[in-house]
Amino acid sequence: MIVQTVLDHADAHLETARERWFDFLRIPSVSAQPTHDADCAAAAAWLRDQLASIGFEAAIHPSAGRPTAGHPVVVAHHPGPDRDAPHLLFYGHYDVQPAEPLELWDHPPFEPTMVDGPHGKRVHARGAVDDKGQVMLWLEALRAWHEATGSLPVRVTVLIEGEEEIGSPNLEAFVVAHRNELAADVAVISDTNMWNVDTPALTTRLRGMVYAQVTLKAAARELHSGLFGGSALNPINALTNILGQLHDADGRVQLDGFYDGVADVSADQLAAWEQLGFDESAFLGGVGLAHAVGERGRAPLERMWVRPTADINGIWGGYQGPGSKTVIAAEAGAKVSFRLVPGQDPAAVADSFRRFVAERAPADAKATVEIFNHSPGIEIAAGGRFLTAAQAALSDEFGRPAVLMGSGGSIPVVEGLRRVLGIDSLLMGFGLDDDQVHSPNEKFEWSCFRRGIRSHVRFLAHLTAPS
Amino acid sequence: MIVQTVLDHADAHLETARERWFDFLRIPSVSAQPTHDADCAAAAAWLRDQLASIGFEAAIHPSAGRPTAGHPVVVAHHPGPDRDAPHLLFYGHYDVQPAEPLELWDHPPFEPTMVDGPHGKRVHARGAVDDKGQVMLWLEALRAWHEATGSLPVRVTVLIEGEEEIGSPNLEAFVVAHRNELAADVAVISDTNMWNVDTPALTTRLRGMVYAQVTLKAAARELHSGLFGGSALNPINALTNILGQLHDADGRVQLDGFYDGVADVSADQLAAWEQLGFDESAFLGGVGLAHAVGERGRAPLERMWVRPTADINGIWGGYQGPGSKTVIAAEAGAKVSFRLVPGQDPAAVADSFRRFVAERAPADAKATVEIFNHSPGIEIAAGGRFLTAAQAALSDEFGRPAVLMGSGGSIPVVEGLRRVLGIDSLLMGFGLDDDQVHSPNEKFEWSCFRRGIRSHVRFLAHLTAPS
Repeated sequence: MIVQTVLDHADAHLETARERWFDFLRIPSVSAQPTHDADCAAAAAWLRDQLASIGFEAAIHPSAGRPTAGHPVVVAHHPGPDRDAPHLLFYGHYDVQPAEPLELWDHPPFEPTMVDGPHGKRVHARGAVDDKGQVMLWLEALRAWHEATGSLPVRVTVLIEGEEEIGSPNLEAFVVAHRNELAADVAVISDTNMWNVDTPALTTRLRGMVYAQVTLKAAARELHSGLFGGSALNPINALTNILGQLHDADGRVQLDGFYDGVADVSADQLAAWEQLGFDESAFLGGVGLAHAVGERGRAPLERMWVRPTADINGIWGGYQGPGSKTVIAAEAGAKVSFRLVPGQDPAAVADSFRRFVAERAPADAKATVEIFNHSPGIEIAAGGRFLTAAQAALSDEFGRPAVLMGSGGSIPVVEGLRRVLGIDSLLMGFGLDDDQVHSPNEKFEWSCFRRGIRSHVRFLAHLTAPS
Repeated sequence: MIVQTVLDHADAHLETARERWFDFLRIPSVSAQPTHDADCAAAAAWLRDQLASIGFEAAIHPSAGRPTAGHPVVVAHHPGPDRDAPHLLFYGHYDVQPAEPLELWDHPPFEPTMVDGPHGKRVHARGAVDDKGQVMLWLEALRAWHEATGSLPVRVTVLIEGEEEIGSPNLEAFVVAHRNELAADVAVISDTNMWNVDTPALTTRLRGMVYAQVTLKAAARELHSGLFGGSALNPINALTNILGQLHDADGRVQLDGFYDGVADVSADQLAAWEQLGFDESAFLGGVGLAHAVGERGRAPLERMWVRPTADINGIWGGYQGPGSKTVIAAEAGAKVSFRLVPGQDPAAVADSFRRFVAERAPADAKATVEIFNHSPGIEIAAGGRFLTAAQAALSDEFGRPAVLMGSGGSIPVVEGLRRVLGIDSLLMGFGLDDDQVHSPNEKFEWSCFRRGIRSHVRFLAHLTAPS
């Protein structure tokens, strides 16, 4: 069978695949930090060259909407065997989260390092899994098909952006502008997790997000807390008072109308998740915690997959250095994000948060709320040709069926592609819960890397096999 | 009269006094930042040489208690005319607050710059007034007496420390260890403000302080807010929730027992302060604010002088950079200070704050509260020989009586000197409310500098004049 030939080819060339992956990881393409703008451009160019080397017509486009400020988008096309072949749109992102705090890394974040772990070898690097490592899975699967057979069994369009970690501010405008060029039957995205290292998964639910920055300005300058304390507004006092009201004692978010449109999942669905035997104590124990938070009375996977949340992702104000300084700060700020589920309107949540702050801000506080990005929660329809092929591929590779799971994270592009292009997204990812995504010592398991490539090879075969 | 000779000498040598003052200001003796340890030592040496040049026996002592970590103390003695002359202990500090944020200064903070202002010339520099500029007032007055008459009319001991801005952690142990050497009839301290640029003041009330740092630790590492949000504790959510409860809706501090021992001042006293015509709107308007905060139903000077307060002086946690990062932080922290009034027990307030945090911290939060320093509020007895002489000196110099006022700030040494040495402190200061103490563009008015020197010259004369 041809699929075995391609799988054997991929295995025989795994070491060169690793070298390509490491080259990609060495480019510090941090989209949030302007000092890395050139690195983002370099990552895009590297991808274009990779794609060109395996038969794609590949191009780099400026990011639409804000062409001078954005990071470039890579688009590539492969005609496949014929015009009737299934047409896949592979989406990924080459940008990574900031690596700070650097002192917590065991190895330099942009020098990938292979180390031993409980599941065999693993690779430490910023972007090891999110999303450079996962992009490499399908790139290498496509390469194996190209090199072993001279072509691809399906038509393929590739869309790789460099702004996912800052909320993809320009992607939707880009997709709108290139909607004809990006037309496909389905999107395929590898940016999610397996159930565990032995059990593959397909993610069919994603939470959306509203990410806001709130700033409170008070006096025109820092004040001496002795001279002014008891008279002048302290913006940190005010900010903690406002944000301290985000949750009630039962863990429910206190924004007006926050739960409007949020439906409870069925008892059957809850029971199915219960069957997965998710061990929240072990999940939390792995990061040094022992007590779950979140809405009282909700099951663990329910809280993380289908209930909305609020988290303060950063806060700052006043003196943060060593020792004591008796100042009243001139301003204070925080980053606050809301994870959303289907039924919630991101714009309504953003508006409600603006009102939440405005109604609680003291008279002298000049409060501003900036919304960096927002996307709704989404549910991917189960069944159908593509999901079935993916299930078969994963089952073949792992010897057990894939779990159809939810994810608490956001992939706004899934919603955008459905709205603009009218296509669903197949979320076939190979990360693990302990991959330390967005944290120091981010890693990707070598076994996940290999089986991820092989699963994608099999997926293409199943799409073209006689049914 | 001899006092006129000394006053004339001081005026004739004002330019060289300014040069000495500027030399002192150029030493960046920031006590809170270890990189400035050598500068603190240099400031102490500079003062020792100044004192030696005007007839003092001057020495530098290592800071007691923590001799290797502390900043040195300058002690000097002048025998005066005879053993029966009044014996003054001049106290001051050579250390200054950190200058950050540097970008908000109009001139380099350690390069004193003379600029024009509404009251004539003024000098911009970190420490211009607090406390280097005010130390220079009595140093130059002593110099004028020394140079114009060959001696001093009183016995003088000088005590200048380098740790006031970090809460004087070693001073009390030093005073205890040197109590015989530091014995005097009264302490004289110039580290407070005038009522306004035309009206001198003596400060007879000071608030004390408890300064705490609270840290909440949660997971062992930063977490992805999508994967863990709804299950894992967010320490910033928890910290804002705890600190957001510091005040009730009426501005009262919510620590258990916080107001124990706090007595209301008399209606007569409140009426006397009312007579001062303090314009809180103008006070706040000067820093861009329009609405007073603090305890509802209390008068402005009451709130600032004789009511205790709580202020969060700094807060931090999570991602503070540009754009968005979807993390749940591993820890968060804040600096919280309480201004105390007579009757409150600082140790009890510190304990109550520890309980306040512990009782509200979620199960997984490892909360620590570190107390940097604490001192009680204090009231200086009115009347007596020294206060009377100071009132006469100020009245002569300014042509109007000095206001006997309170201050919201803390000078812990006043309490320590009373307890250890059994002496009161005379607080004769020449700062103004708009001096931007502890802030960028700290300044001292040239007219306050000159009249401060002259007032100290007159004060010594009044102490020795036949009564």
